[in-house]
Amino acid sequence: MSFSPLIENLVDGLRCLPGVGPKSAQRMALHLLERDREGATALAESLVAAMTGVRHCQQCRNFSEETLCSICRDQRRDNKTLCVVESPSDVMAVEQSGSYRGQYFVLMGHLSPIDGIGPEEIGLDQLQSRVADEDVTEVILATNPTVEGEATAYYVGELLRADGVTVTRIAHGVPLGGELEFVDGNTLAHALSGRREVGIT
Amino acid sequence: MSFSPLIENLVDGLRCLPGVGPKSAQRMALHLLERDREGATALAESLVAAMTGVRHCQQCRNFSEETLCSICRDQRRDNKTLCVVESPSDVMAVEQSGSYRGQYFVLMGHLSPIDGIGPEEIGLDQLQSRVADEDVTEVILATNPTVEGEATAYYVGELLRADGVTVTRIAHGVPLGGELEFVDGNTLAHALSGRREVGIT
Ligand SMILES: [Zn+2]
Ligand SMILES: [Zn+2]
Repeated sequence: MSFSPLIENLVDGLRCLPGVGPKSAQRMALHLLERDREGATALAESLVAAMTGVRHCQQCRNFSEETLCSICRDQRRDNKTLCVVESPSDVMAVEQSGSYRGQYFVLMGHLSPIDGIGPEEIGLDQLQSRVADEDVTEVILATNPTVEGEATAYYVGELLRADGVTVTRIAHGVPLGGELEFVDGNTLAHALSGRREVGIT
Repeated sequence: MSFSPLIENLVDGLRCLPGVGPKSAQRMALHLLERDREGATALAESLVAAMTGVRHCQQCRNFSEETLCSICRDQRRDNKTLCVVESPSDVMAVEQSGSYRGQYFVLMGHLSPIDGIGPEEIGLDQLQSRVADEDVTEVILATNPTVEGEATAYYVGELLRADGVTVTRIAHGVPLGGELEFVDGNTLAHALSGRREVGIT
């Protein structure tokens, strides 16, 4: 026995959400149908609006519905410092630490040759030309302290140091093996202030 | 600092899902934008389709996109036995037990005078006329073993017994496969008082 086709479709649809298995998808579907049809309709609208309207900032690659994101447009920020992160949630995490006033570059991932994700896919040409064009003086590598994040930081660091820019890596106050977006603001603030220039020991 | 308005709206929209807090709503929104825009669009469509298309079965009140649900239309089922449950997921649970071939009546809730949910809101007139019109011989009360579910079962039971129909309540006891030490005292008390002599079938 199963629910009606429309309910089954909804349960399937909810499975695209991370961390939602068949049992909780079913619970969610019934909850919406029984108690929050208005909320469900609003959710559908916000999904469509976000999926069609949210693109990437032309300068930092972060999510943005305009050509330039609000951070890139902010004239009060320091344009000579770039913080390189893997994802939009990492930008959010660094912002919430309250200890950074420079600009960002969002890789939207990390190097992963096995998955066909090379330097081009994570926008490194764009990063290089931005560093050159805007006389960036320091690039802070704030990729995740995971194996892939470290490897990506190493690669980006080598690339940019060859261009003569100062490259730093956030300090390992960030717990190894963790993900940046789950780190508290204090730890992140420490990690930022304890950053070191790459390639000098 | 916050995400762009469209992303913030999406995060808010996802909060209507039960068990989804601000942190996981954010994780879901970014996941969909980064990795599954197609899935998100399909989810939006299934939400709209279900919210507009799913109504209640005219006979049993269960969710259905047709006038009568598939169970009510099933001629092979026993129409003389009605199982009264609180919600569509309870129908699913009883069906999955594989031990019931009668029909259902779904209250879509339980009596809760404080919230203004009285006999009419849970469809008791409809239940009474159905019992009378279709010569139902037994009504099984399978509301939840909670205070509200018990109170509702008691009320429905009194109502229908006055109409001369046999009313039964599902047995309370220790769940199969459970361990006695983790069963609460009330359940154990029920299990003890409902004990049966072994070897009589
Ligand atoms: Zn930007
Ligand atoms: Zn029905």
